[in-house]
Amino acid sequence: MSSTTVNDNDEAFQSTFFQHIEQNTPLYISRLAEAVAIKSVSCDLQSYLPEINKMMDWTEAWITRLGGTSSLLPNPNATKEKPLPPILLGEFRASVDAERKKTLCVYGHLDVQPAEMDDGWLSDPFVLTERDEKLFGRGSTDDKGPALSWLWVVEAHQKLGVDLPMNIKLLYEGMEESGSEGMFEAIAQLSKPSEFLNDVDFFCISDNYWLGKNTPCLTYGLRGLAFFEVTVKCAEQDLHSGVLGGSVHEAMNDMVKLLSTLVESGTGKICIDGIMDDVRTVTKEEEDLYTDIDFDLEEFKHETRVKTVSDSLLKKDKMSLLMGRWRFPSLSIHGIVGADASKTCISAQCTGKFSIRLVPDQDPEKVKKVVTAHLEKEFAKLNSPNKMSVILSHGAKAWLSNPTHPNYEAGARATERVYGRRPDFTREGGSIPITSFIEDATQMNVLLLPVGASDDMAHSQNEKYNKSNLVNGIKVLGLYIHELSKVKGPKPSSCRCEPLTEEELMIPGAFMKGFRCKCEI
Amino acid sequence: MSSTTVNDNDEAFQSTFFQHIEQNTPLYISRLAEAVAIKSVSCDLQSYLPEINKMMDWTEAWITRLGGTSSLLPNPNATKEKPLPPILLGEFRASVDAERKKTLCVYGHLDVQPAEMDDGWLSDPFVLTERDEKLFGRGSTDDKGPALSWLWVVEAHQKLGVDLPMNIKLLYEGMEESGSEGMFEAIAQLSKPSEFLNDVDFFCISDNYWLGKNTPCLTYGLRGLAFFEVTVKCAEQDLHSGVLGGSVHEAMNDMVKLLSTLVESGTGKICIDGIMDDVRTVTKEEEDLYTDIDFDLEEFKHETRVKTVSDSLLKKDKMSLLMGRWRFPSLSIHGIVGADASKTCISAQCTGKFSIRLVPDQDPEKVKKVVTAHLEKEFAKLNSPNKMSVILSHGAKAWLSNPTHPNYEAGARATERVYGRRPDFTREGGSIPITSFIEDATQMNVLLLPVGASDDMAHSQNEKYNKSNLVNGIKVLGLYIHELSKVKGPKPSSCRCEPLTEEELMIPGAFMKGFRCKCEI
Repeated sequence: MSSTTVNDNDEAFQSTFFQHIEQNTPLYISRLAEAVAIKSVSCDLQSYLPEINKMMDWTEAWITRLGGTSSLLPNPNATKEKPLPPILLGEFRASVDAERKKTLCVYGHLDVQPAEMDDGWLSDPFVLTERDEKLFGRGSTDDKGPALSWLWVVEAHQKLGVDLPMNIKLLYEGMEESGSEGMFEAIAQLSKPSEFLNDVDFFCISDNYWLGKNTPCLTYGLRGLAFFEVTVKCAEQDLHSGVLGGSVHEAMNDMVKLLSTLVESGTGKICIDGIMDDVRTVTKEEEDLYTDIDFDLEEFKHETRVKTVSDSLLKKDKMSLLMGRWRFPSLSIHGIVGADASKTCISAQCTGKFSIRLVPDQDPEKVKKVVTAHLEKEFAKLNSPNKMSVILSHGAKAWLSNPTHPNYEAGARATERVYGRRPDFTREGGSIPITSFIEDATQMNVLLLPVGASDDMAHSQNEKYNKSNLVNGIKVLGLYIHELSKVKGPKPSSCRCEPLTEEELMIPGAFMKGFRCKCEI
Repeated sequence: MSSTTVNDNDEAFQSTFFQHIEQNTPLYISRLAEAVAIKSVSCDLQSYLPEINKMMDWTEAWITRLGGTSSLLPNPNATKEKPLPPILLGEFRASVDAERKKTLCVYGHLDVQPAEMDDGWLSDPFVLTERDEKLFGRGSTDDKGPALSWLWVVEAHQKLGVDLPMNIKLLYEGMEESGSEGMFEAIAQLSKPSEFLNDVDFFCISDNYWLGKNTPCLTYGLRGLAFFEVTVKCAEQDLHSGVLGGSVHEAMNDMVKLLSTLVESGTGKICIDGIMDDVRTVTKEEEDLYTDIDFDLEEFKHETRVKTVSDSLLKKDKMSLLMGRWRFPSLSIHGIVGADASKTCISAQCTGKFSIRLVPDQDPEKVKKVVTAHLEKEFAKLNSPNKMSVILSHGAKAWLSNPTHPNYEAGARATERVYGRRPDFTREGGSIPITSFIEDATQMNVLLLPVGASDDMAHSQNEKYNKSNLVNGIKVLGLYIHELSKVKGPKPSSCRCEPLTEEELMIPGAFMKGFRCKCEI
């Protein structure tokens, strides 16, 4: 496989395409505002499932309006007791030569994190609000803005009378912010012969962020996740802390002691025996990869907004800090549920929630073993008669791809045509478990093509999407399919040969090139 | 002052009074159900202030219906930005000889703790539900059931054509479960010459519980409270734990470490230097007070519902356990706010809430000093650049009265006439800061006359009020005013002499008898 250089046709298309996108920006913003107004919060389905369904319907109506075909796949994990949102499958086929053209599948999600004014938003999180060329709203950047951009790419081609250079499939879910419930089962099913994903040749996901505010990047690595819940129980019901304080063994007291043993303050070191066993040693070659990355520690302190509080980071130089975020595990304590701080009571039981971001080659199940052993050892030290239990509520391995794969090269060329510079090739600290799952299930390459900036504050207060990123994002995605369509050779999906054995993966370059089946070697 | 024995008149009244109460029990239950249905939750005024106001209006309407006078005193701490419920002042004067008769003021509260089905209630907390002779519902025992009983005492006298033996005043608030905001200022004001509380001779509060399920008691001591909020801040806004985990000093990590230093697991010992400095040494005489109290450790494990979980208490014998609840301080960690466990994020800041129950002679301000010093010392050990702050959000001294005061003797006689046995004289682990404040502001004696059982589960799931306690409670309160009316001598409130100096309080017996002004010596 190889790609061609930009030719006259490309340049003519680029010019009219860019003009179209710029002229229609107010329209894209008003449509994004409609989508943001739909409170598709997936962590509280009891309240918001109808909103997620509404968001799915809204998007499906757009696919139909643009001449695509679509269906809502019932969530495979839904039950009568626990209804779940469906999965949206959409398809736009090229008008000419669709059979011959390759197929790109875009994954995205239409659900969002919760948000309340009280959390510290400066404007209603569900009313898209423009300030200083930024569009503030929950889901603006994570992930409604990027996911919907694909619709506007298709629309632009239609309006400009340019046929799609590839067939485009959309795979949009509504549970991403809550562990993608049902999505893994759906992907496994959809990857089977003659199913929706079976003829997909490349995947693209725009659900992560640039490393900085100004420099675009492509992402070839993600950390995994092991999310733990540790519960301590002292009674069958909550007790009055005045009437009974001093007479019972309190669950919350054991809880804070257990959680206090996990991470060293000051250094961030995870204090769990065996947690580093499977973490690869840093090589000289790997260190070199970090040298040229555009990243500034002082700016980072401003962006994270720790500057005005502590003005201090866990690591003091660029490489150590980026490695702390990308290639070493980290542990965050998220909170304790079951302890209602507004009541002067002794909680009957409480559950501490924390997660560990995993790196290659950490396995969530093995991490579960060392975490459980640690908590059991620490709990035994407390001499508490209370009951403790630990569960791994979701786990996902880290993912590492290769920036020289043609899919990445196409993303890089498209980025360069929009921004006038090659993107940085970066890894990410976050987890998108779906990435490696798609790769494993389909054997096809996945490109992470972030279109939002590092300070977009996904999951946080005042999440935003820069107007410039919205515009340039649509441009990059539009050119990316043109660049990707230039990849020569048979459709990767038409090669149904066996995946490489472990031995074959040892052939120099085979794995690192991202090739997954024999005919690609 | 002394009291007379039961005479024929007493017995005739008692018989018809008891019969009336028993016949009207279904009516009392249906009225309590009406009150429980009003969601007067004071910890969330933004949602429930109208409900508290409704509960105030409902009660005031009853006072009017029963021929009393009333007014709603605007809450002295209310502002336009923070509206607060008013304080209900009611009065029932004797028809004959009101001027000569002494005046009892009853304090109670009409607000409740929050409650949700999801917390583990077996029936809707705001629908009074009878099961096994128990009335389940939020506020059934804390404090709507007891507070409203006074209305039925007055009604019974009217229906039976018996004049009230004393004038009765009601002082009912709507913020008790949230620190009695505004109530202290109101009492200070109301205690001034010619104000509402100025002619009150005795106070009675039914807002605590028996020590056990079967044996009535009068309570002569309460623990105080120092409620702390410790905050750690690491950034100006929440951060994504995937993207940034491993690069920033996380507030929640410091928080669990700080909270873990407060109490020793296994023993419940408070690990704060200086916290025990002002706690009195236990004397032999004091130990003797605990010998005869009706209390069973095994039954206590069942009631607290720790039996089926750990089957273990902090203390292994009756006296140590009761002292742990009553006469030694205890520390409970209630929860951590600001850390939303449902999101995989790094909280920008979080606040740990814990409280210490205080005993004589601990002073909340002095306790604040040692707690703050402890937290600062422990935070320094963490080598964290984050910012920590501590506040004492409310504090109240412990209260200790004397069971030989005539007010207590009247309560004991009334209890004996209903239950056929003298009540136990007990202390309580909980805090009712209003108790000592009323005593200090008015110089009049306060009787704590609990009418609910130990397993009523105030503040907890499935709060209930036994039907028998509802009935017997009204009987005890009714007979109590007859017993109290027999107290000879001038009205205590008519003695406006100076309170005892500290030296005079040293006169043997003066303070312990509960006498607060010179003419009582």
